[in-house]
Amino acid sequence: MAKGINPNLKLKSRALKTLEQYLDGLQKGDRFILGEVLTLIESTNKRHRSLGEQILNAIDSSKLNTIRVGITGSPGAGKSTFIETLGKHYIKNGKKVAVLAIDPSSTKSQGSILGDKTRMQSLSTNSNAFVRPTASANRLGGVAQSTKESISLCEAAGYDIILVESVGVGQSETELADLVDIYLLLLLPGGGDGVQGIKRGVVELADMMVVNKYDGEYKHLAEKSRKDFALSSSLFHHDLQEWRVPVELCSSTEDKGFESIIKKIEGFISLSKSHSFFSSKRGNQDQKWLGKQIKKVLIHKANQLFDVRSHLQEGMQDSSIFQTLQNIHKAIEKDFNTFMSQKKKENG
Amino acid sequence: MAKGINPNLKLKSRALKTLEQYLDGLQKGDRFILGEVLTLIESTNKRHRSLGEQILNAIDSSKLNTIRVGITGSPGAGKSTFIETLGKHYIKNGKKVAVLAIDPSSTKSQGSILGDKTRMQSLSTNSNAFVRPTASANRLGGVAQSTKESISLCEAAGYDIILVESVGVGQSETELADLVDIYLLLLLPGGGDGVQGIKRGVVELADMMVVNKYDGEYKHLAEKSRKDFALSSSLFHHDLQEWRVPVELCSSTEDKGFESIIKKIEGFISLSKSHSFFSSKRGNQDQKWLGKQIKKVLIHKANQLFDVRSHLQEGMQDSSIFQTLQNIHKAIEKDFNTFMSQKKKENG
Repeated sequence: MAKGINPNLKLKSRALKTLEQYLDGLQKGDRFILGEVLTLIESTNKRHRSLGEQILNAIDSSKLNTIRVGITGSPGAGKSTFIETLGKHYIKNGKKVAVLAIDPSSTKSQGSILGDKTRMQSLSTNSNAFVRPTASANRLGGVAQSTKESISLCEAAGYDIILVESVGVGQSETELADLVDIYLLLLLPGGGDGVQGIKRGVVELADMMVVNKYDGEYKHLAEKSRKDFALSSSLFHHDLQEWRVPVELCSSTEDKGFESIIKKIEGFISLSKSHSFFSSKRGNQDQKWLGKQIKKVLIHKANQLFDVRSHLQEGMQDSSIFQTLQNIHKAIEKDFNTFMSQKKKENG
Repeated sequence: MAKGINPNLKLKSRALKTLEQYLDGLQKGDRFILGEVLTLIESTNKRHRSLGEQILNAIDSSKLNTIRVGITGSPGAGKSTFIETLGKHYIKNGKKVAVLAIDPSSTKSQGSILGDKTRMQSLSTNSNAFVRPTASANRLGGVAQSTKESISLCEAAGYDIILVESVGVGQSETELADLVDIYLLLLLPGGGDGVQGIKRGVVELADMMVVNKYDGEYKHLAEKSRKDFALSSSLFHHDLQEWRVPVELCSSTEDKGFESIIKKIEGFISLSKSHSFFSSKRGNQDQKWLGKQIKKVLIHKANQLFDVRSHLQEGMQDSSIFQTLQNIHKAIEKDFNTFMSQKKKENG
């Protein structure tokens, strides 16, 4: 071993496979390789990230016949059990299922592939399932960037059904809606007065609602809730005009209602496809995603060039927002002019 | 007159009043001066804009006891007549009313103060009312920037009630919600199946709903709609937990229901104030607004520095979005490094 080389670093690089090995593993649907590639693209290590990017550039999942299902719900609605049961039904129907999560607030299990085993045990041990723990947000671009990349990689590895779970914190709801083909809202049986703990903004995103815990003592309440939610969602337009947002009943513990849910999901996807809604939605999502990522990078870089932050702190104490904005305008203009005159000098 | 000076330009500058004259006019509530100042801040002319900024810096409307009401509604719900009638009731109650509109798509009546007279005739001729036509979006920062500034100027000119109308196109709904204290959704009598023409996203924003055309043959339908909307809005959380979104009935043509609407608006404002919701909402709106404007300027400047557009066109044909993003990352990094090394040279 050459002097001055950190043995740990050496080991780390040696542990990386070649691009061909990774692509080969993905094509074979190797779950361990898939997990490793997801770790690469989430990595802050430049070398790992660069290898991850090469893999991303080499795959093309755009022609594959996959369905991306977003799932969110009230706290305590039983999302994990619901997803696990839904996943098993899909597998029984001959599908391969990947489970991803979008959670901007989590920094747990950073890039750890061991995390796979701590969630949804009975699903994750199935050879037709791939369960990925929550991604971390320590990269510029954030969780939404790596989740989109993760979806593509799972699809390239042969997974037909991608279930993406949102933990329902902050912006994750709208970010989730911009990543999936169908957005499913899981609800608890319960009446009005906002007892669901669901913010109204989430309801607008739902292509489908499911009232969980349709069992035991909750049965009647679940049926009543179903009617209320159905009326509520019928009052306003869905983007896909012909679509009436269905409200389904299910019980994860008694394993009831899941085949009907799968049929409704299929119904939405085929209606979407027959109206070119499906492809234009994915196209719009791509454009929007790309635009967002570019904005993030531009703002990050611009912040390094223009010392906005110093003006901000000064300004916010001042409480005069118009003046603060004007000061920042001027400071940026000044920095920008300096840069431009330097560029002119350089070019002759 | 000096040679080489455009007489029209000269005339235009001579038509400007001094800062003191404008401030004095605002304090006196002079509607003509207010109109002129709004034209200055919407102007793309640097000199006009700069004078407008000086005026903005000199006023402080933060201590005033004003209410900003956002109003949006289905196409054909009768927004103009509703606003006109609501405005007259406020004036009868001893208030001064300003009417502004947010419409990102409009380029009509650019900065024209004559436009005042073309809308809401019977309200705009009242000396306690100020009706402003739609602002134009030809300035960086857009309509949301100048509308916020317009609100502050109207308040400084002594208007208590600011009614801001949205035409319901594109992003204007959320922009409106970020400018006002209470957001009112005007609806038509009508059943389910999305006949309202209202996008679901708008409903989430409503602090209050009003079913208009509660008259003649629509009376029964309006009553039924009221119940449906009330149930619908009761299912999910309002940000102000104690608040139940009321659904009111009114008839603009028969002038019915308006005093009750004004009472409900007051009820929301006092509940908001008793929970510090009011001031923290305005504070958050200021922060969010400032952040948005800064982002717009940064992205605009960064776009001038980093040649993103060329990569974008190239990339979008390619349809490989991950690769496009990587290319843009690299190009920005390169431009940025060039800039930084130039800066280093300069500093030593």
